[in-house]
Amino acid sequence: MNLTERIAELRERVRQQRPLLHHITNFVVMNDTANVTLHIGGLPVMAHAREEVAEMVAAAGALVLNPGTLTPEWVESMLVAGKRANELGVPIVLDPVGAGATALRTGSNRRLLEELKIAVVRGNSGEIGALTGMGGVVKGVEAVVEVDDPVEVARILASRYGTTVAITGSRDIITDGTRVFGVDNGHPMLKTITGTGCAATTMIAAFAAVERDFVLAATAGLACFGLAAEIAAQDARGPASFKVALFDAIYNLSREQILAGARVVEL
Amino acid sequence: MNLTERIAELRERVRQQRPLLHHITNFVVMNDTANVTLHIGGLPVMAHAREEVAEMVAAAGALVLNPGTLTPEWVESMLVAGKRANELGVPIVLDPVGAGATALRTGSNRRLLEELKIAVVRGNSGEIGALTGMGGVVKGVEAVVEVDDPVEVARILASRYGTTVAITGSRDIITDGTRVFGVDNGHPMLKTITGTGCAATTMIAAFAAVERDFVLAATAGLACFGLAAEIAAQDARGPASFKVALFDAIYNLSREQILAGARVVEL
Amino acid sequence: MNLTERIAELRERVRQQRPLLHHITNFVVMNDTANVTLHIGGLPVMAHAREEVAEMVAAAGALVLNPGTLTPEWVESMLVAGKRANELGVPIVLDPVGAGATALRTGSNRRLLEELKIAVVRGNSGEIGALTGMGGVVKGVEAVVEVDDPVEVARILASRYGTTVAITGSRDIITDGTRVFGVDNGHPMLKTITGTGCAATTMIAAFAAVERDFVLAATAGLACFGLAAEIAAQDARGPASFKVALFDAIYNLSREQILAGARVVEL
Repeated sequence: MNLTERIAELRERVRQQRPLLHHITNFVVMNDTANVTLHIGGLPVMAHAREEVAEMVAAAGALVLNPGTLTPEWVESMLVAGKRANELGVPIVLDPVGAGATALRTGSNRRLLEELKIAVVRGNSGEIGALTGMGGVVKGVEAVVEVDDPVEVARILASRYGTTVAITGSRDIITDGTRVFGVDNGHPMLKTITGTGCAATTMIAAFAAVERDFVLAATAGLACFGLAAEIAAQDARGPASFKVALFDAIYNLSREQILAGARVVEL
Repeated sequence: MNLTERIAELRERVRQQRPLLHHITNFVVMNDTANVTLHIGGLPVMAHAREEVAEMVAAAGALVLNPGTLTPEWVESMLVAGKRANELGVPIVLDPVGAGATALRTGSNRRLLEELKIAVVRGNSGEIGALTGMGGVVKGVEAVVEVDDPVEVARILASRYGTTVAITGSRDIITDGTRVFGVDNGHPMLKTITGTGCAATTMIAAFAAVERDFVLAATAGLACFGLAAEIAAQDARGPASFKVALFDAIYNLSREQILAGARVVEL
Repeated sequence: MNLTERIAELRERVRQQRPLLHHITNFVVMNDTANVTLHIGGLPVMAHAREEVAEMVAAAGALVLNPGTLTPEWVESMLVAGKRANELGVPIVLDPVGAGATALRTGSNRRLLEELKIAVVRGNSGEIGALTGMGGVVKGVEAVVEVDDPVEVARILASRYGTTVAITGSRDIITDGTRVFGVDNGHPMLKTITGTGCAATTMIAAFAAVERDFVLAATAGLACFGLAAEIAAQDARGPASFKVALFDAIYNLSREQILAGARVVEL
């Protein structure tokens, strides 16, 4: 199987296995990422109480940690859930929302990377730059200045923490520090709605739940997400109708569409 | 009036009385259930601070308790609001999201049932099974194994707590332990979006606010919700366009549609 | 430039400056107001942790305070953020959701008005009436009884706190206590979905971030929002398709549409 065929096969595997994706995520996107989980074929649960996260994650295929509206208490719950996930071999996908924007965000995300074994980190160029200390500027949750060399920045973070790093942008970069993939799917309309980064992270988690080659899983998640955005943009009249079409397209995404439309390269 | 005519009459009563539905609910569905409240004809308010819930519920036509993203503090607020609701005769509708999935969820929902007089409990087969201790398996918030005999399970829970129990599924079952109704409205697309159980609970609350025969109110709420789903599915292109059409259909749901489409039986 | 031309110019200024709008807002509308921020041309961030709000607001063009699902802890964070905003000259826009409905809501909003320098307060007639003590009745978050003379009520609150007050209704009233503007844009469908008041507040914040004449900024925000609603209503089939169309219309709102459709008067 070539790379595109493997992605199509993984997309089908998600539908068949219906992995539970346990999210400890931000208030802005909870509804959206629960829906994306269902549309790609998984089961969502949002649970953040310290009293239950260790028990909940034991049933999960993957754990999503997204401190987009963090408080210290939520970060503690993420650590409790994450440690249990590590014990059980449940892959963790981290979305370091707004790293670089405040000390709390940069520090909390670094702590999650240091205290947990993270399978995949997905962020924008500014967030990943802030975590490596190699530049990029984040305003709120947006990268307003990109890093100079995303491949190099991703490689460095991946090597430092023994993780897979995905930087999303006009070309998505995915690397474990050795292998590097690029995904050229996507659409500018993704910048006009909130939570598309978070939704991309959920897509990665769905694939990471069914495929332990996390570079491949992250690449597949981002290719499917970007391709769905391209399909959705075809008859959108603005960002809200684009979002409706995007979610429909994730649900409907077929083997044929992936084989014809996924644009993935090994770099 | 036959049963269908009574449902049509109740739907109109909600529109005329505009009951305030006080929700203490989960973060995933707050926006959706506020919208469903408006669309069916009520006024929504989401208020969870222990300092105000007793005052807020005094203005309400019904109180919705939905511990879908619970913490112990939120459960305490639910108890404060619930006790005041009981004093005032404001009906409480409980959605035991994820009961069976963790000890916190099962225990918190049992506690709400034990310490409060609940008018209606609505859950999926696994959740209601977990509360009775009669089987069903919940993964996250989804029933992945159904109970063998939903009518019997619903009857037992209803009798134990002196409440009305609604189990939603391909046929919805509603009982107070004596009378049993079945609702055959609904559509498989409801499984493809998050929060449809929570939305169904809000529909029940809207009817419970205007009709003290809670078996009838719950039956009416579920019939209207399922019928709206059937109408919505007719030209949906996927789950997100289905959701838009579902919410439009709830708002537009007319006497004529109910008389022609409600499929309700006394068992 | 006449008033309509100034509004069109401001709308373009938002698109060019892309101000960061720091929201400390309620759980119901976080997703919606983040999207509205993007659609009108700004960058959203939702951040409420006391540990980071002072740092976050320093990067913001405006701060939105919306205690719609308040707890005392969140109000404390609003005060921390607000005080820093005042020091830095970042305008604050307050949405006193549900003032009048409970003592916690009325008291917390009064406290925000007293301890902070607020640029614009936007509420419905009942909320603003409750804050002035001049009548209007709020049920949940809805004005079920309007104040008798909204211009007078708005003037009094504006003068008392040295702020600009906007009362939204069939005619929106905007005043700093001296100048008074009326906006006649809008559509009844806005009452059928949740969060439209909150979205209007975000629109005001986007304009306040780029224009220090806050009466003009608030007028522009409400005119654009109301006009987008009129455009959206043209082919909506119900409240959910209206919402999709409304958000699309905000994004697409052009100079030509504003010049042709804004209905603004100085009173």
